[in-house]
Amino acid sequence: MLDRTYTADAEPGDHVTVAGWVHEIRDLGGIAFVILRDKTGQIQVKFEKDEMDEELVETGLGVHRESVVAVTGEVEEEPRAPTGVEVTPESVDVLAEADPELPLDPSGKVDAELPTRLNNRTLDLRKPEVKAVFEIRAEILRSAREAFRDLGCTEINTPKIVATGTEGGTELFPITYFGEEAFMNQSPQLFKQLMVGSGLERVFEIGPIFRAEEHNTPRHLNEATSIDFESAFFDHTDAMDACEHVVKAAYEGVAENCQQQLEALDLADEFEVPEGEFPRLSYEEAIERINATGELDTQLVWGDDLPTEGEKALGDDVGGHYFVTDWPSEIKPFYIKDHDDDEQLSTGFDLMHPRMELVSGGQREHRFDRLVEGFEQQGLDPDSFDYYTKMFRYGMPPHAGWGLGGERLVMTMLGLQNIREAVLFPRDRQRLSP
Amino acid sequence: MLDRTYTADAEPGDHVTVAGWVHEIRDLGGIAFVILRDKTGQIQVKFEKDEMDEELVETGLGVHRESVVAVTGEVEEEPRAPTGVEVTPESVDVLAEADPELPLDPSGKVDAELPTRLNNRTLDLRKPEVKAVFEIRAEILRSAREAFRDLGCTEINTPKIVATGTEGGTELFPITYFGEEAFMNQSPQLFKQLMVGSGLERVFEIGPIFRAEEHNTPRHLNEATSIDFESAFFDHTDAMDACEHVVKAAYEGVAENCQQQLEALDLADEFEVPEGEFPRLSYEEAIERINATGELDTQLVWGDDLPTEGEKALGDDVGGHYFVTDWPSEIKPFYIKDHDDDEQLSTGFDLMHPRMELVSGGQREHRFDRLVEGFEQQGLDPDSFDYYTKMFRYGMPPHAGWGLGGERLVMTMLGLQNIREAVLFPRDRQRLSP
Repeated sequence: MLDRTYTADAEPGDHVTVAGWVHEIRDLGGIAFVILRDKTGQIQVKFEKDEMDEELVETGLGVHRESVVAVTGEVEEEPRAPTGVEVTPESVDVLAEADPELPLDPSGKVDAELPTRLNNRTLDLRKPEVKAVFEIRAEILRSAREAFRDLGCTEINTPKIVATGTEGGTELFPITYFGEEAFMNQSPQLFKQLMVGSGLERVFEIGPIFRAEEHNTPRHLNEATSIDFESAFFDHTDAMDACEHVVKAAYEGVAENCQQQLEALDLADEFEVPEGEFPRLSYEEAIERINATGELDTQLVWGDDLPTEGEKALGDDVGGHYFVTDWPSEIKPFYIKDHDDDEQLSTGFDLMHPRMELVSGGQREHRFDRLVEGFEQQGLDPDSFDYYTKMFRYGMPPHAGWGLGGERLVMTMLGLQNIREAVLFPRDRQRLSP
Repeated sequence: MLDRTYTADAEPGDHVTVAGWVHEIRDLGGIAFVILRDKTGQIQVKFEKDEMDEELVETGLGVHRESVVAVTGEVEEEPRAPTGVEVTPESVDVLAEADPELPLDPSGKVDAELPTRLNNRTLDLRKPEVKAVFEIRAEILRSAREAFRDLGCTEINTPKIVATGTEGGTELFPITYFGEEAFMNQSPQLFKQLMVGSGLERVFEIGPIFRAEEHNTPRHLNEATSIDFESAFFDHTDAMDACEHVVKAAYEGVAENCQQQLEALDLADEFEVPEGEFPRLSYEEAIERINATGELDTQLVWGDDLPTEGEKALGDDVGGHYFVTDWPSEIKPFYIKDHDDDEQLSTGFDLMHPRMELVSGGQREHRFDRLVEGFEQQGLDPDSFDYYTKMFRYGMPPHAGWGLGGERLVMTMLGLQNIREAVLFPRDRQRLSP
């Protein structure tokens, strides 16, 4: 269509066509400047009213901000221009006119509340600091996949329409599937486990999960991206090693490939790839350390789940990512294996960022009889999960794995205040559109 | 958990622990062999009954096929063994016993029908030729993503729960979303278009799509993987170039990284990366060539869609991938732009494999007024799509893109007979589980 040069690549002496959005028009009387913006940056276009073709000047200066134009001309050095160069236009082609009134100002001069931003994501994403979040998000997924490849994983895609949820009927969105009741899957848990018993042995999936949770907080979504890992012949410690590898790889990928985006977010100086091993605290140690901080009104006792304020106090105390291991079996899901020498103690683990939980994982129960017992104890009918449990009778190796919240990783890495800032089109109790 | 050596890496002289499934037990009397299988291949374990510890022999030979065991011992050269080496065991650890009766024979000696295979995917995927399909599928997705990166795309993830479908209420699965009616998205079309108007400009997404189509054929799925591309400042010819690049990159990735898998599928000799440019036939030329084959009972006329037998006849005639371009506007969706000089002619295109359609794409209508007219002509209420159309008033650049059926790419590349063979857990009218 266009033999186009990105604004960032326009060098003095080049004859170029640049195309993008009219970011700003500065009319100084005899001379006027149009600042043109594309995905790589901005460039100044100079209009000398008395010396240029009248129609050209009218076209170039007659459009509203955020219109889309293509400008052809000579690039010249101009120290006073924002990027040190400017274009003297020979022709201006208006590709799409913008209305004079915008629901959101992409120049960022007028602040917008999050709902307005989400209702107008197209405009919102014209701001460099918003665009940067999603470019970094893409790099996180890319480098996570590379890390899974290093680990010898095969990528899988498991169904999102299912007959039964991982943990029963709660928190599931019901679907009408050709007259039958079905659900949107809340986790690939059962399917990825079925794959470790196959010839693939070690798998990962990055895909959507759906949770009909009533929560409406800055850290919950009803549709989220889950980064899932599962491996045969792994125990919980191997799974934690793999988890640490993937999380660090994501940070490393961003550090290596997203400096410009980190600058747009004003994070270039403070951004750090986590160094050293993530500490592994037992649940028991965790509650002791939380109690010792004195931040909670009541002391935690064995069997309590960690309250949000407790996690926060511990996070401040540890100061970086850490695992919490060896949880009481009763507060972990039935498919997590208990320690062989202590049935009260589960091999479940969580990876915590100081701000919140990122990962939940553990070694899985691979013994058919115990698994069926677990379903019954959970109040679930093992027969409804027959497609899953029966495979455990045909040689299911010991295995372990975890699920990492993709948006939480983005949010904690970039210090975002609301998880909705890490999703293009978030879904929550109030928001189903766009 | 296990300091484990893959069977493919066990070299004579090594002291190893190998772990996997008991593929076969050959008892010759005084001597017996267990063939152990893991994801990398197989290895022979030798039991000399009179010379070895009785308990060890009993454990090693007492398990049923497909049980999971770990064997520790010395690797020795043995020309008569299937892989030229064998393990003399010092210890055998049974990690998971398999039932004596299996619903499907992973050794492949007993053929299984597709429904039996799909009901027992864990066992089915222990067959090298089935595992190979999914390892190749993973490589196709990996190399497609790399190709998108070459093209300067940002990966996006768009919502799967939506208030309105791309093309209205037909063929959508309804969801109950906190008491409101919602749907599972049938295509990321509208969302990816919204992103080309943002600062991202050029995007891709690989994710699930959901279609409540009544079709139950070997080439239709109700949940599929769509590979989507969209770029600002692209016309339909640029989009076809990008499409060709991605499809060829997928073939190249498989050729470079999946020789072992192609061998397992008996395709190593015949597998070819498509060479040269994919021919671009206009719709008019396509119907002329189909008519000329004489394969159809009635001649096609302008405005007819291409029937399956017509596509087949043309595919045989062309002999490889080809594009069909310049379709009659009336048989392409409203969001596809018409040619500027002929409103009856659309910029829509399809990429065809001789066996079936793979890709549908085109330049998009980016002019607000025309787009709203298109909705009305399609019998859709533009107000329901306001979140989408209104962004076309704030500077939406000309753009083009396409969607590629992930499973169709796998299926045509590997010559699979049924598209269900390209999905781990397919969803169709009859199949909702596993």
